[in-house]
Amino acid sequence: MPSACFCLTYVLSLCLGLLCLLFVTFWSSHWRGGFSWDGSALEFNWHPVLMVSGLLVLYGYAVVVYRLPFTWSQKKHIWKLVHAGLMLLALVLSVLGLCAVFDFHRGIQAPHLYSLHSWVGICTVVLFAVQWVLGLGGFLLPCSPLWIRSSLKPVHSWMGKAILILSVTACISGITEKLLFTLNGDSTEPYSSLPAEAKFVNSLGLLIVAFGLVTFGILSNKKWQRPEEDAESVQPLLNVHSP
Amino acid sequence: MPSACFCLTYVLSLCLGLLCLLFVTFWSSHWRGGFSWDGSALEFNWHPVLMVSGLLVLYGYAVVVYRLPFTWSQKKHIWKLVHAGLMLLALVLSVLGLCAVFDFHRGIQAPHLYSLHSWVGICTVVLFAVQWVLGLGGFLLPCSPLWIRSSLKPVHSWMGKAILILSVTACISGITEKLLFTLNGDSTEPYSSLPAEAKFVNSLGLLIVAFGLVTFGILSNKKWQRPEEDAESVQPLLNVHSP
Repeated sequence: MPSACFCLTYVLSLCLGLLCLLFVTFWSSHWRGGFSWDGSALEFNWHPVLMVSGLLVLYGYAVVVYRLPFTWSQKKHIWKLVHAGLMLLALVLSVLGLCAVFDFHRGIQAPHLYSLHSWVGICTVVLFAVQWVLGLGGFLLPCSPLWIRSSLKPVHSWMGKAILILSVTACISGITEKLLFTLNGDSTEPYSSLPAEAKFVNSLGLLIVAFGLVTFGILSNKKWQRPEEDAESVQPLLNVHSP
Repeated sequence: MPSACFCLTYVLSLCLGLLCLLFVTFWSSHWRGGFSWDGSALEFNWHPVLMVSGLLVLYGYAVVVYRLPFTWSQKKHIWKLVHAGLMLLALVLSVLGLCAVFDFHRGIQAPHLYSLHSWVGICTVVLFAVQWVLGLGGFLLPCSPLWIRSSLKPVHSWMGKAILILSVTACISGITEKLLFTLNGDSTEPYSSLPAEAKFVNSLGLLIVAFGLVTFGILSNKKWQRPEEDAESVQPLLNVHSP
């Protein structure tokens, strides 16, 4: 029976994630002109939406999937597939988000990857891709020996949290960059006068931070971890049904 | 006997912290004209130096103090005082860093607290102050009952990590903001042309992220935690020598 405290925290993380998605989509569509895929600023608008959807919210939902108590009575390898599948979707959305910004830069002949936000962001996505491949090789493929899986587990766990931290950092620095460019660039109301868009997007930033910290809280509470490994989960997934 | 892996990771965190301090001081003194306390841009230069010193590096050093194996054979209350003392110094440096930026804003008649960086940063310092007061009340004062201390411990631990994450986020968004203001404002070489200052300060950003993640790695490794609480540590500090 899950504790009331876990249920409340989990529902809070779901709600904060959905609010992040709503806010970032509303920002791009209401204040930044909506979406397109034509190398214009409308293509750029996919970047924050896809990164917040993939690298932050879906990643955050996927990372706590083993904490759901109703999954503990079920075979772990099913939930490994759910975890890996959600993570793959999150990675694909993140890569599409990168494509949008690279395409936009090409369209306006702007240089790529010069800002600190872009350096942190690209490191996050590369680390995420490495983590996914290592996770597949170490925990799902039958050829991985036990000693590799047991050595990999703490690294996988630390990298999982590190990617969440990097993701929040990349989102906040990216929002800062975008607001300074747009509001101090072509707007009649500068960022420092806190127009409605600035207040709204600063609030999105706080929602992102809150989502990251609540998700991180779910991950960090030892009482909410899936009970100790059973024999099944020690075997690589594809060996589970082998003789 | 500490493991070689712990020693390496701990020395790495010390070196990364020192490099962050060196880089941020060199940035302010070499590229931004040095330091003063007169409401000018030279007073602003204290802001990144004090925040990186207090809210990030000293905080990061203080947060892992219980992980040092040589302290495990010593009375925990001594190390509680070291932990609380270092945290107080970190908090004082952070508040001085805030004073520097508020004073600078007053000097140039700029509004306070409008950017996302400032919202995240002020939340971080307020949370840090709350954490310090709760830590003092819960773990050091004799009037705190045992049930409060045991309930507070997981919250204290989660908030400690949350403040570290917020601190990294505030630093990276602050650097982004400062580079966009200075290089795209009064500089002949814009940020996008990646002049030497931009490369140097982007590298400072990566060092800050690396320091945060390594410190976080030390905190997260269960094997490196101080062994289970002894009877002494269950008593509030100021009761230790009472009859």
